[in-house]
Amino acid sequence: MALAKPVTIKYLKQSTSQAWIEQAITNLDIILLDHSHCERKAASVALNLMFRYPSSAKLVKMLTAIAREELEHFDQVNQWLERRNIPLAPLNSPPYGAALNSQVRRNEPERMLDLLLVYGLIEARSHERLGLLANYCPEPELAKFYRSLMASEARHYGVYWILVTTYFEQEKVENRLEELARFESELLINLHPEPRIHS
Amino acid sequence: MALAKPVTIKYLKQSTSQAWIEQAITNLDIILLDHSHCERKAASVALNLMFRYPSSAKLVKMLTAIAREELEHFDQVNQWLERRNIPLAPLNSPPYGAALNSQVRRNEPERMLDLLLVYGLIEARSHERLGLLANYCPEPELAKFYRSLMASEARHYGVYWILVTTYFEQEKVENRLEELARFESELLINLHPEPRIHS
Repeated sequence: MALAKPVTIKYLKQSTSQAWIEQAITNLDIILLDHSHCERKAASVALNLMFRYPSSAKLVKMLTAIAREELEHFDQVNQWLERRNIPLAPLNSPPYGAALNSQVRRNEPERMLDLLLVYGLIEARSHERLGLLANYCPEPELAKFYRSLMASEARHYGVYWILVTTYFEQEKVENRLEELARFESELLINLHPEPRIHS
Repeated sequence: MALAKPVTIKYLKQSTSQAWIEQAITNLDIILLDHSHCERKAASVALNLMFRYPSSAKLVKMLTAIAREELEHFDQVNQWLERRNIPLAPLNSPPYGAALNSQVRRNEPERMLDLLLVYGLIEARSHERLGLLANYCPEPELAKFYRSLMASEARHYGVYWILVTTYFEQEKVENRLEELARFESELLINLHPEPRIHS
């Protein structure tokens, strides 16, 4: 955690609004269901990166660990859903993920740089928001669960940071992160009407 | 394992040829690299099914366990590659997977039935072939590793069998499996020139 802090600051240009916190806390069941989808998507994202860059040994090794952990969390969130009698169901995705993906340039090596930064950004935002849920959730057991996930989310964006600075020059990374992080923060200025982890 | 046996027999219409065994044993490094790709693909397949059928709680639960295990094996196979100084690299896929996928009908519920049967078939064949590698591999440590994976491959096609008979009538399942299993065995009659787990 000591190492992760400056990375968060780099990644997130603006903190989450009080409006999101209120929306989330009054819709905990939907947030839990969306959280389940987020964990599954995060595992898929890691697997897809391994498919795209199968020869990058460090990437494959680190993302295998991330994918395994995301699936473990997916399972844990689903146990929470079961305990609360919330049936598994599809949910409309908020525009956040697609908007970020639209910023990924199509040619290599820019594509790889952008993908690693975008996924790092999403993990950093997840870390921040799970922390808010841990602080504001009125149910102590659920709050404890959110707190237990925070450390790994921090490790995850730490991993994306290590990878992007392994494969690209620091200056190039910093410049592109500046652009993408600003874009990410602007996406969240207007609260999405449906309660989501990334609304 | 006691339960799994009759399922294997149902799934596989023909045993693997001696020619495949010889090809595999004389190309152990390529087989290991292909095995790494197979484990990653198997994890993706399980995740994709969860994406397609997000409300099927039993499917989601059982396939989460499979995906986690496949990623654990992926990691183990990659450690073997590292130990033998085999660099991670892309490999041309043999025609097996695409040919099987071509048999999957496009409309639901037939699509789900076919997908569960096809993935069960692939797991059953993997189980058979890892068993052959365990028996014929001249390197005792590697043979031991293959043997350690066999039990979970058996569990995996057992899971696909449980799922397909959960969501579909037994008779419908048996009839369609008969067709797909015949197709699968015919695919393997002519040995693919490149050594692969499913060549």
